[in-house]
Amino acid sequence: MKKIRIGIIGAGRIGKIHTDNLMRLPQAEIVAVSDLFAGPELEAWAQERGIAIVTKNSNEILANPNIDAIFICSSTDTHVPLIKQAAQAGKHIFCEKPVSMEIKQTEDALEAVRQAGVKLQVGFNRRFDHNFKRVREHVQGGTIGEPHIIKITSRDPNPPHPDYIKVSGGIFMDMMIHDFDMARFLSGSEVEEVHAMGNVLINPVFAEHGDLDTAIVTLRFKNGALGVIDNSRQAVYGYDQRVEVFGSKGSAAANNDHPNTAEVSTSEGIVRDKPLHFFLERYNEAYIEETQIFIDCLLNDKPLPVDGNDALQAERIALAAKLSISLSRPVAISDIAELSKQLSKSV
Amino acid sequence: MKKIRIGIIGAGRIGKIHTDNLMRLPQAEIVAVSDLFAGPELEAWAQERGIAIVTKNSNEILANPNIDAIFICSSTDTHVPLIKQAAQAGKHIFCEKPVSMEIKQTEDALEAVRQAGVKLQVGFNRRFDHNFKRVREHVQGGTIGEPHIIKITSRDPNPPHPDYIKVSGGIFMDMMIHDFDMARFLSGSEVEEVHAMGNVLINPVFAEHGDLDTAIVTLRFKNGALGVIDNSRQAVYGYDQRVEVFGSKGSAAANNDHPNTAEVSTSEGIVRDKPLHFFLERYNEAYIEETQIFIDCLLNDKPLPVDGNDALQAERIALAAKLSISLSRPVAISDIAELSKQLSKSV
Amino acid sequence: MKKIRIGIIGAGRIGKIHTDNLMRLPQAEIVAVSDLFAGPELEAWAQERGIAIVTKNSNEILANPNIDAIFICSSTDTHVPLIKQAAQAGKHIFCEKPVSMEIKQTEDALEAVRQAGVKLQVGFNRRFDHNFKRVREHVQGGTIGEPHIIKITSRDPNPPHPDYIKVSGGIFMDMMIHDFDMARFLSGSEVEEVHAMGNVLINPVFAEHGDLDTAIVTLRFKNGALGVIDNSRQAVYGYDQRVEVFGSKGSAAANNDHPNTAEVSTSEGIVRDKPLHFFLERYNEAYIEETQIFIDCLLNDKPLPVDGNDALQAERIALAAKLSISLSRPVAISDIAELSKQLSKSV
Amino acid sequence: MKKIRIGIIGAGRIGKIHTDNLMRLPQAEIVAVSDLFAGPELEAWAQERGIAIVTKNSNEILANPNIDAIFICSSTDTHVPLIKQAAQAGKHIFCEKPVSMEIKQTEDALEAVRQAGVKLQVGFNRRFDHNFKRVREHVQGGTIGEPHIIKITSRDPNPPHPDYIKVSGGIFMDMMIHDFDMARFLSGSEVEEVHAMGNVLINPVFAEHGDLDTAIVTLRFKNGALGVIDNSRQAVYGYDQRVEVFGSKGSAAANNDHPNTAEVSTSEGIVRDKPLHFFLERYNEAYIEETQIFIDCLLNDKPLPVDGNDALQAERIALAAKLSISLSRPVAISDIAELSKQLSKSV
Repeated sequence: MKKIRIGIIGAGRIGKIHTDNLMRLPQAEIVAVSDLFAGPELEAWAQERGIAIVTKNSNEILANPNIDAIFICSSTDTHVPLIKQAAQAGKHIFCEKPVSMEIKQTEDALEAVRQAGVKLQVGFNRRFDHNFKRVREHVQGGTIGEPHIIKITSRDPNPPHPDYIKVSGGIFMDMMIHDFDMARFLSGSEVEEVHAMGNVLINPVFAEHGDLDTAIVTLRFKNGALGVIDNSRQAVYGYDQRVEVFGSKGSAAANNDHPNTAEVSTSEGIVRDKPLHFFLERYNEAYIEETQIFIDCLLNDKPLPVDGNDALQAERIALAAKLSISLSRPVAISDIAELSKQLSKSV
Repeated sequence: MKKIRIGIIGAGRIGKIHTDNLMRLPQAEIVAVSDLFAGPELEAWAQERGIAIVTKNSNEILANPNIDAIFICSSTDTHVPLIKQAAQAGKHIFCEKPVSMEIKQTEDALEAVRQAGVKLQVGFNRRFDHNFKRVREHVQGGTIGEPHIIKITSRDPNPPHPDYIKVSGGIFMDMMIHDFDMARFLSGSEVEEVHAMGNVLINPVFAEHGDLDTAIVTLRFKNGALGVIDNSRQAVYGYDQRVEVFGSKGSAAANNDHPNTAEVSTSEGIVRDKPLHFFLERYNEAYIEETQIFIDCLLNDKPLPVDGNDALQAERIALAAKLSISLSRPVAISDIAELSKQLSKSV
Repeated sequence: MKKIRIGIIGAGRIGKIHTDNLMRLPQAEIVAVSDLFAGPELEAWAQERGIAIVTKNSNEILANPNIDAIFICSSTDTHVPLIKQAAQAGKHIFCEKPVSMEIKQTEDALEAVRQAGVKLQVGFNRRFDHNFKRVREHVQGGTIGEPHIIKITSRDPNPPHPDYIKVSGGIFMDMMIHDFDMARFLSGSEVEEVHAMGNVLINPVFAEHGDLDTAIVTLRFKNGALGVIDNSRQAVYGYDQRVEVFGSKGSAAANNDHPNTAEVSTSEGIVRDKPLHFFLERYNEAYIEETQIFIDCLLNDKPLPVDGNDALQAERIALAAKLSISLSRPVAISDIAELSKQLSKSV
Repeated sequence: MKKIRIGIIGAGRIGKIHTDNLMRLPQAEIVAVSDLFAGPELEAWAQERGIAIVTKNSNEILANPNIDAIFICSSTDTHVPLIKQAAQAGKHIFCEKPVSMEIKQTEDALEAVRQAGVKLQVGFNRRFDHNFKRVREHVQGGTIGEPHIIKITSRDPNPPHPDYIKVSGGIFMDMMIHDFDMARFLSGSEVEEVHAMGNVLINPVFAEHGDLDTAIVTLRFKNGALGVIDNSRQAVYGYDQRVEVFGSKGSAAANNDHPNTAEVSTSEGIVRDKPLHFFLERYNEAYIEETQIFIDCLLNDKPLPVDGNDALQAERIALAAKLSISLSRPVAISDIAELSKQLSKSV
């Protein structure tokens, strides 16, 4: 049996998740792991999993001829250089989202991938979620006719650490980018125009970094459909992840996942447990499936289900949303380059 | 337009409900009301509604040639004599459930009705409930194939007043009789065998009167299906009224009605309001519909949807359940006469 | 018992509904009904209900000294003149929404009401709906903390007749106006800024009249909260009426009402009946309650729950939404007068 | 790190499941696997998993001094002899349910376990299910007060193969035994009396083997509560696994698990996907957890959560249910020995 030999770059939380998921796959073999902070702890962790090479230097992975593909799980600012290097080294790439926070850089990275002829999958894990996949199947299968309205609710259970807010890229590039991808995934169409409204209602620390903690974005799609996404950095009742596609023949909607179906009826009312709280628990199966499919596509030379263009389009929508906030008006995707230029001049 | 002229016998809670529901119907005219405790209060109530005759004596209603039909809403012990008198007087009859607590008496009353050629409807209001009707439609329409298992949950929000427990006829004849009728209604079949298990878990006052407050009864139907009914005299979360019919092609189930659909999600969990609490609120529409249909069937000479035989069959099942508790064994409906005789001898 | 004597102006569908609801109230007496198309049919209808006066001329009602209050159920263009006349005649007023399609006219009508010292209630019936009232109670009671996001979905089961589209005032003034009022009702705050996105996806006839059939509007409230409303003129699965208020301590959401709770499980899936389809059925109780409260407030000199200012504010938001579509940008409520002027000049 | 070294006896479907679940546990090491039909296929399967020993002879496992614990996953008739041998060999035991179909044999096996001082866990996997655990937590925590009624619905998606029906031990010992254990688990009390009603409604092949395919069993518990279990061998809509505990302060109920939360609304109605169909999918996590806990209890010398006595009590209830069917009357658990004797004589 042919195996895909993998190097993991970045062994933080998400790097470790991918590692454990890959280890279940008989067709995947993890050869090496690199992390800036590699030390005895990571070595023990790697040894338990039979991973031979542990290094602080990602170049050791990129230069290793026995590695077929890499997983880029390091911080966002490293994504573009690593993609370029990996592409030049002829390695296939799985990269966490976003590829970068600068459209130009993302375009450069994709160009490098194209020229090298390697494959690139981006970590939009939610496409592999059992609920959203099922909604998309109904849309694709024609159950609801032509899509008219796409609605996405996405609220985190807790705001990120203040240190992270500084470097996150802001609510649109860091958080809502998943929903921009979901909007394209569900509608089967590209976004043409974006209008964003936002506020700081949870914690003033967001304002200190020029960020928002609550936002509603409306979208106009090429196929004529309209969309709306609402984000909050803090839903005290858990991770709120719902979608709805409404169309000419009906609607398909996905509700939250709960840890159990138990329902208690007392003199106070009817109560059930909150939705799943933690994103790794909520999207556990989706993380497993995205790596399975990545390996399967490499082995069988099939097209990847989420590629560099998907990353680029979502980043463009995120940029349009940022510009819309700055300009207090709707922004066409086709205008973002020009508007960015103007805006940077005026600053 | 022809009108049905009505006399109400018994102006307690249920008599007043029927009166108000009948008053909405253009084809019904309430001519008279009788009640043992008629007085100034009832007179004022009747005057407000334009009811000309108020009396303590039900004979005045039975003898009134301007009355076409009567509603018997007085205490259960008066049902049989009133039915007989009304039949002899040629009046159509709507009688609250149960007709009586003695099968023989019910049979006598039905015989009088038959001989007089009048019509008799019995107050099994739940047959007209929006949920149960819909389940029955699915069963009748073949959606779920041949019925295999019929399940009925019926729990009151509060136990009756201790004074009522004495005269209620017991949990099977007073409360579960509705469910026995529902079992026949949903299964489309007669009950052949009954096994009852019960206990006193809520209030020892039930035991003092030889009654139960919690009971589970299993049923075997002529068509081979099995059934189970559970009753409790106290569901602190409200009036619990659910049914399920399971068959060869699937199941049809009805859940409780709630006062609203509002759902609150907080850090404590997901909460919604309790089901409707009060039976008059829960079955409000069903009470309206049963009187509408009664009037309509009289006017258009159509067969009534719940007749004397339905009362008799439900009473037989209730008696079988009582005997099953006394004898600690299953009881066939065909054996109840013989067993009752034996049991009364042995006492 | 004191009674409020009422004249109905306009005996179309909604006028007849209000009449029947008022007839149930012992404290209300319907004295007269006027309709431009009054004839034998309306006379028969009135006679059945014991309404003495039937006329084509609303002045007969306005001049009648035995009438305390009028219900304005005629076409929208008649609302303002009728309100003014009724105010001058010292009669209290219940007026269907919208008061008018011109802010200035509505302001004039309200001024007349103020000067005459009569009371005016506007027919925003949804405020009296069991689901939305419960959500509002949770918001007011602090269950969900400070409101951050208000979401309203409102989709009609069928588009209106093409003849009506011409005179409807457009999706914002005719349909979404209910939702603008609901947004104020649920948020407990005024709207400051409005952005609208819309399209014609259902039927080109809307475009022919410069109207939209699908729209998403985002709102910014004075208290900092954000809101979003989505409307469609055609939800094939029924009348879709849902709201959600999300805040610092949780969320309160109301789902649709269904005709029953029956659920069928077969090899094909789990199926339940569609939501209630017809607005008169869906909001039946709310229509009853708004008239009860109107009569009660008149009798006991209590402040009305939905008054002229509520009408005015909702109309302002609707106008802002229209301007936002015309200008393709967000519109502040404080700018609508100036923008309207500019826009009318430029035309 | 200390590891528990394990031998698997019986490598059919469930033996393979346990193996894969154990392989995820760092504290478990699978040393050997035996199966009557061991051959190249099983050897390949074992090699992939790094299991050194593959044999047809379970004695090789029982005699291996490097094995600490065994998993008995072979056919039911082998359970008792294997338990005895393993106990004598000083090995801890995980045994699939039921231990045997003869109470006396089960008692003998438990005696051997007791004398040898080894530990025995029985495969009542449903105790580890997320839904049922949560209901039990509510019961134990007092949320619903004193339990009054325990209801369990358990319906298989498809009937077993006719060949299996012959040797299954019948619906009570093979299928409902899980529910008898669940009844004890949820009520926190022992069963005193059992009444069973059953029929053959799905396939006459059950009757040919003296078995039933549809059954309802009522239970009386020592703490006074009543219970009811309904079983069907064929629910066409999927695996139907629901429980409800109703008590003095309310009820706790668990509904089915679904593959996703997607809901489709069309002009036909509201549809969602059927519940999970296959028991290994439905109880996937429960299977994982029961092995984790077994290993953890062995390593840390903690009492096992489901032991031999739990197996024995469930088998007694199953026997009482069989006797109840034969005798057409309720059967007390305390009478089963005497009744079995009488019944075997009379045959």
